[in-house]
Amino acid sequence: MAGARLVSYFCVLVMEYAKPLAKLVGEFEKLPGIGPKSAQRLAFHVLRMTEESAQALAAAVLDVKAQIKLCPVCFNYTDQDVCVICSDPKRDRSLLCVVAEPRDAVAMEKTNEFRGVYHVLGGVISPMDGVGPEMLKIRELVSRVGEDEIKEVVLATNPTIEGDTTSMYIAGLLKPLGAKVTRIAHGMPVGGDMDYADQATLIQALQWRREI
Amino acid sequence: MAGARLVSYFCVLVMEYAKPLAKLVGEFEKLPGIGPKSAQRLAFHVLRMTEESAQALAAAVLDVKAQIKLCPVCFNYTDQDVCVICSDPKRDRSLLCVVAEPRDAVAMEKTNEFRGVYHVLGGVISPMDGVGPEMLKIRELVSRVGEDEIKEVVLATNPTIEGDTTSMYIAGLLKPLGAKVTRIAHGMPVGGDMDYADQATLIQALQWRREI
Repeated sequence: MAGARLVSYFCVLVMEYAKPLAKLVGEFEKLPGIGPKSAQRLAFHVLRMTEESAQALAAAVLDVKAQIKLCPVCFNYTDQDVCVICSDPKRDRSLLCVVAEPRDAVAMEKTNEFRGVYHVLGGVISPMDGVGPEMLKIRELVSRVGEDEIKEVVLATNPTIEGDTTSMYIAGLLKPLGAKVTRIAHGMPVGGDMDYADQATLIQALQWRREI
Repeated sequence: MAGARLVSYFCVLVMEYAKPLAKLVGEFEKLPGIGPKSAQRLAFHVLRMTEESAQALAAAVLDVKAQIKLCPVCFNYTDQDVCVICSDPKRDRSLLCVVAEPRDAVAMEKTNEFRGVYHVLGGVISPMDGVGPEMLKIRELVSRVGEDEIKEVVLATNPTIEGDTTSMYIAGLLKPLGAKVTRIAHGMPVGGDMDYADQATLIQALQWRREI
């Protein structure tokens, strides 16, 4: 069914757009969050770009693949030998924040509050998706905590079943090493409305309450 | 103020992403409908693509610029000398549909109802944006209607002030040539709700009513 729809959709594409245009629409559609309509809009936009702008876009796509690799210390994306955070002498090396994905480190950096260093797992434990602990950078995390002068490990995976499970699993491995292991708080988002909060969030907000 | 925000935003970008990644995020952000968050998501997706997929995307961007040009007859996008619609012997050359943009011709083609040929204006008359009639393919339309065996011209610009103005302007030029000039109907969209329709649409639906 889906196959038939795909084929008929492809026929429509070939019929209605010139071939290079259909190809570009198709490439844009493969990107996350880009539907057929947005893909068409983007492709028509590229057609109206200057030659230089189109070349800049194409070059940026290729350069990111060619130049970005994983930092051998924290496994975040970098174009250096060691990433700018790991090689920054002003960062506090005794405070380690564990995140699932590079984008989570970006989110944390945007707060301008965290002055420690990161460890990027490259995902979360998810048996449903066939992701086991051995597929994440957990072994590397354990050896890092064992060797380095780390005093506290902040587990900052998402407050989801997979994120919580991953944090619990890691805490179980790190505590015997004598490191202080903490978890980012679960609770009401700032500016949120009690009345609209889901039950799970309210329960967490209640359980994580503290004296003020 | 906006300048300062832009500069500070750029600094944030440079700080938090490796340079090639920041560049790609920036390139994606220039595309229509792509905000900072989507741009980041797309860039991280490209990083996880295979080498071949990234090359296919980059090549599609460059190919579309290199291979697509305007059809000399209808001014739609094409990678041929004359576009597939204009060179199709099965299309009715006596029925001409005038649209503002290539994407409007795509929309019309998707109906599978129109068997005539097109004329793409390349925009609409819009004094606010500095677009006058001389910047559109209106002169070419007039000479086409004067020369060819065209019996009816369907004006299919958007039902907006600019689209209506452009259609009125073109009708004024074409009627003296003896061509039948029609306008696509304005009214209630199929599946629409009277209760939610805006006043302007309802007024049009009333004015365009016909006996059934």
